[in-house]
Amino acid sequence: MPQNGIVSIIDQRKLPWAFECIDLKSCAEVAESIRDMAVRGAGCIGATAGYGMALAAGEADSWEGLETRAAHLIATRPTAVNLAWAVNRQLNRLKKVPHQAWVDVARTEAEKMAHEDAAACEQIGKHGLELLREISQRKADGVVNVLTHCNAGWLAFVDHGSATAPIYAAKAAGLKVHVWVDETRPRSQGARLTAWELSQAGVPHTVIPDNAGGHLMQHGLVDIVITGADRVTRQGDAANKIGTYLKALAARDNGVPFYVALPSSTFDWNLSDGVTEIEIEQRDGAEVAWVDGPDAKGVLRNVRMTPEGSPVANYGFDVTPSRLLTGLITERGIFPAEESALAAAFSDVVPLSVQ
Amino acid sequence: MPQNGIVSIIDQRKLPWAFECIDLKSCAEVAESIRDMAVRGAGCIGATAGYGMALAAGEADSWEGLETRAAHLIATRPTAVNLAWAVNRQLNRLKKVPHQAWVDVARTEAEKMAHEDAAACEQIGKHGLELLREISQRKADGVVNVLTHCNAGWLAFVDHGSATAPIYAAKAAGLKVHVWVDETRPRSQGARLTAWELSQAGVPHTVIPDNAGGHLMQHGLVDIVITGADRVTRQGDAANKIGTYLKALAARDNGVPFYVALPSSTFDWNLSDGVTEIEIEQRDGAEVAWVDGPDAKGVLRNVRMTPEGSPVANYGFDVTPSRLLTGLITERGIFPAEESALAAAFSDVVPLSVQ
Repeated sequence: MPQNGIVSIIDQRKLPWAFECIDLKSCAEVAESIRDMAVRGAGCIGATAGYGMALAAGEADSWEGLETRAAHLIATRPTAVNLAWAVNRQLNRLKKVPHQAWVDVARTEAEKMAHEDAAACEQIGKHGLELLREISQRKADGVVNVLTHCNAGWLAFVDHGSATAPIYAAKAAGLKVHVWVDETRPRSQGARLTAWELSQAGVPHTVIPDNAGGHLMQHGLVDIVITGADRVTRQGDAANKIGTYLKALAARDNGVPFYVALPSSTFDWNLSDGVTEIEIEQRDGAEVAWVDGPDAKGVLRNVRMTPEGSPVANYGFDVTPSRLLTGLITERGIFPAEESALAAAFSDVVPLSVQ
Repeated sequence: MPQNGIVSIIDQRKLPWAFECIDLKSCAEVAESIRDMAVRGAGCIGATAGYGMALAAGEADSWEGLETRAAHLIATRPTAVNLAWAVNRQLNRLKKVPHQAWVDVARTEAEKMAHEDAAACEQIGKHGLELLREISQRKADGVVNVLTHCNAGWLAFVDHGSATAPIYAAKAAGLKVHVWVDETRPRSQGARLTAWELSQAGVPHTVIPDNAGGHLMQHGLVDIVITGADRVTRQGDAANKIGTYLKALAARDNGVPFYVALPSSTFDWNLSDGVTEIEIEQRDGAEVAWVDGPDAKGVLRNVRMTPEGSPVANYGFDVTPSRLLTGLITERGIFPAEESALAAAFSDVVPLSVQ
């Protein structure tokens, strides 16, 4: 965010058909961009919300006004915890300083969070790289087949991405990597964002329907699954894009390691049982019923996928129980998805109320 | 097939946006309609192939010519066993009669197979109805939530359908049924065909992305899963539309009963281990990369779903191991997916070479 108080974001709804940026000039515009998924992905939502609070700091005449804007931001996406984490961190920071210092302090804090996110993803890449290196070394052809769901790439974070960070690190280290990209209906973040990102980076990949992963795993075509997460409880249950749980089941059934990659800002230490405690966002059925894309002439069209008279449901996320996870790849290393291990590794950030 | 030797089929590629029929005038046209999925669904492919052999009987000058056409028909879809079953049944029938009787005998046999398919599906409906009735009786609201994948409805068979037969029977019996319809990417047979069928029949239903079923089962929103099958081995492993296996895993993980409904013509008694022995059809990646549907003005458009530079894979089916099945609903009753039980129930149709 430059001094003119404008937050510039990539409009992820337009990718890969167009690369456009949007200028967000108010906290309300930031909220709308998050709700409508122009901005999406755990880290990216957190960073953008951080800047949104910097805009809010300039708009609000009172603490009450700031809190109203904070609540408005948090309400846009109920499942993604980085959102609430970033907003609350700003509130905690700002309540200690006088009103005239809000804007400067909030901007500095937003920048700090963005840098932290990028640094965390870089570390996730380093730790995850070792997993991929081990697989590559024991395979005759050296090719590591990674399956991923949705987009936890650099678009979803400030840089590197979480689930894709080990892939980019492996590519940089000269390993042979091939990525099975789940299409990820209904919003097609895999087909549209992950595939585009991997193309840009020159990483070999194949787009598959969300239905295909189980078959691939049955036939030894997947060496490891790595996904991101939107909220992970203290016992390691992971909310991520709808359909992640099905891939975790298939991985378990076929002895394929399944990892969730996340910066520690994605932990929700207040929750334990993810399946019963994490609120799952329900979005507009139109996201399932309609899809947009270019026709053969390159003209962008919006077409129906479902018959007009048929109701549609659109759950945004599901929860993969920790028992199905091989481990969590964080900026501090790789840990089992178990409460004791996580509490030990993150003892300095777990809230006192939970310890 | 009337006396003029024309086979008329519904063009399932156009549904639900248009209801059009195609006249097939030669065995080659029948083969093309099966390959391109204008005709699809286990029973419907079998019945159409039966009529295709009746056309072949009129075209072929020699037994060799008939066999060439038979091989051509069988090669169109490698996974669906009803296809080979119907074609081979015609060959076995015709080899016992003189050339001049071929057309009449083949027509009669084709009609017989179509009637048998309709009768089998009706019986599947009766047996499956009892499962739904039991569920309805123990639920406070009486509503049975069925999840199904792909289309095993009346479009896929000569009548009733296999997986949907119990649903239609339940509706006729006055039970409250609601169906979760898996979209079924990439060809969207759920969203386009099953949803349309259920709408026509007035059965309450909701279309969901293929990713959603696990989440629904975790939250008690699915009482039973019923799918069709394209080939079931003698030990009960079931090949069905890609993604079925993922739903079977979720059903097992959540204690939801999972049934496969099939007429006995879908058994392949020659195969045992479905995962290693059933050939899985790989289809054109364009089916994943492109989708057609009407725009807001009702004009049919074809739009891209994946970036141009990204390769795509398109596996047509996966295999659900018998250990994940609660049972098989057949025209002779409901049986465990176990070799001994199936051999006993179908001892008169199991080939001697396998017994």
